[in-house]
Amino acid sequence: MERHFEQELATLREQLLAMGGRAETSMKKAIRALERRDRALAAEIIRDDRLIDRLEIEVEERCVMLLALQQPLARDLRFITAALKISNDLERVGDHAVNIAGAADRLADLPLLKPLVDIPRMEELATGMLRDALDAFVRRDAAAARAVCRGDDQVDQLNQQVYRELITFMIEDPTTISRALELILVARNLERVADLATNVAEEVVFISEARIIKHHAEESTGAESDEFDRA
Amino acid sequence: MERHFEQELATLREQLLAMGGRAETSMKKAIRALERRDRALAAEIIRDDRLIDRLEIEVEERCVMLLALQQPLARDLRFITAALKISNDLERVGDHAVNIAGAADRLADLPLLKPLVDIPRMEELATGMLRDALDAFVRRDAAAARAVCRGDDQVDQLNQQVYRELITFMIEDPTTISRALELILVARNLERVADLATNVAEEVVFISEARIIKHHAEESTGAESDEFDRA
Repeated sequence: MERHFEQELATLREQLLAMGGRAETSMKKAIRALERRDRALAAEIIRDDRLIDRLEIEVEERCVMLLALQQPLARDLRFITAALKISNDLERVGDHAVNIAGAADRLADLPLLKPLVDIPRMEELATGMLRDALDAFVRRDAAAARAVCRGDDQVDQLNQQVYRELITFMIEDPTTISRALELILVARNLERVADLATNVAEEVVFISEARIIKHHAEESTGAESDEFDRA
Repeated sequence: MERHFEQELATLREQLLAMGGRAETSMKKAIRALERRDRALAAEIIRDDRLIDRLEIEVEERCVMLLALQQPLARDLRFITAALKISNDLERVGDHAVNIAGAADRLADLPLLKPLVDIPRMEELATGMLRDALDAFVRRDAAAARAVCRGDDQVDQLNQQVYRELITFMIEDPTTISRALELILVARNLERVADLATNVAEEVVFISEARIIKHHAEESTGAESDEFDRA
C-alpha cells in the first residue's frame, strides 16, 4: 500500500510536469506565431489547449482519489492540495497562450508594427520562471522557489516598458492603434503567466514549510533551512 | 465528532460567503471610484484587499486541517477541495477590483471620456453571477450553478462592445488614447470576474455530481436530478 501510494505521488508529479511542458510549448508557439504572423501555428495552439485541459482533469481526479483512498497526512496532504492548485495555475497558462494565439491570428494579415523585442523577452522570462517553479516543486526546493518569486518584478517592468512604447506609437500614428492594442494585451497575458509561475513557487514554499507566504512580506531566512526531504 | 465536523463545514461555508461579499463590495466600490473619479475610495479598495487575502489563508488552513483531522470521504471531500479552489477564485476577484481601483486612481484627475454605461452594466452582471454562484454553492444547487455559466456570454459581448467603442474614440481623437486604454483594461478585468464566477459555478456542479463540467460541452440534463442534499 505504501509503495503504491509513492507510485501514485510520482505519477502526479509527472502529470504536473507534462502539463507544465505543454503550457510552456504553447506559450513559445504563440509568440512564434505572433512574430511570424503564422495563422496555422496559432490554430495549433488552440487545438493543443484541449490536451492541457484534459491533463488538468486527470490531475484533479487523481488528487481526489488519493485524498479519499489514502487519507494522507502532513506533508503528503499538503503536496496533494498544492498539486490541485498548481494544475489550475498551469491550465490558466494554457489559456493565456490561447489568448496570444488569438492576437497572432488577428494580426496575421496586417503589417508588423515593429520587430518584437521586449515581448519575446517577457515570454522567455515568464516560461523560465514557470519551468524553475515546477523544477523546485519536483525537487521540493523552497530556496529555488523563493528565487522564482523574485523574478516577477523584471517581467512587470518589461510590461510597463511595452505599454509606454506602444502608447507612443498610438499617439504618433493612429493607424497603429488596434495593432498596438493587441500587443499591449499580449504583454499583459505574459505578465499574468509570470504571476502564475509565482503562484506555483509559493505553493512549493507552502508544501515545504506549511507556511503560506503569499500575501505576506517575504521574511528573509537562511537558504539551508529551506531544503527539505520527505524523510 | 460528527457534529463538530458539521460545524466546521458550516464555518467554511460562512467564510467563503464572507469572502464573496467582500469581493463583491470591492468590485462595486472600484466601479464607483471610477465613475466619481474618487481617489480616496480607490485607496480604500487596496486596503480592503488585505482582508480578502487574510480570509483566503484562513479558508486554506481550515481546509487542510479538515482534510488532515477528519479524513472526509465522498461528498464532503469534494466539498472541501472545491472550497480550496473557490477561495482562490474569490481572492482573484479581489485582485481584479484592485486593478480597477488602480485605473480609477490614474484617471481621477483627467476629464471623463464619456459617461460610463456598459462598464457598470458589466460589473452588475459579473458580481451578480458571482453572488448566484456562491448562493448555488451554499444551497448545493447544481441547476442554479448551470444557469450562472450561461450568463458568461452576455459579459463577453459587452466586453467586445466596449472594446469596439473605445477603439473608435482613440482613432477619432488620439488625445483620448491613454484614457480609453485604461477603460478597455477595466472591461477586461470585469470579463475575468465573470470567468471566475463561472469557475465557482463549475465547482458547484462538480461537488454535486462528482463530474467535471469545465472544458466539456454542456450536456443538457433535467433540473430535478441536479438538486441534491447531503443525505
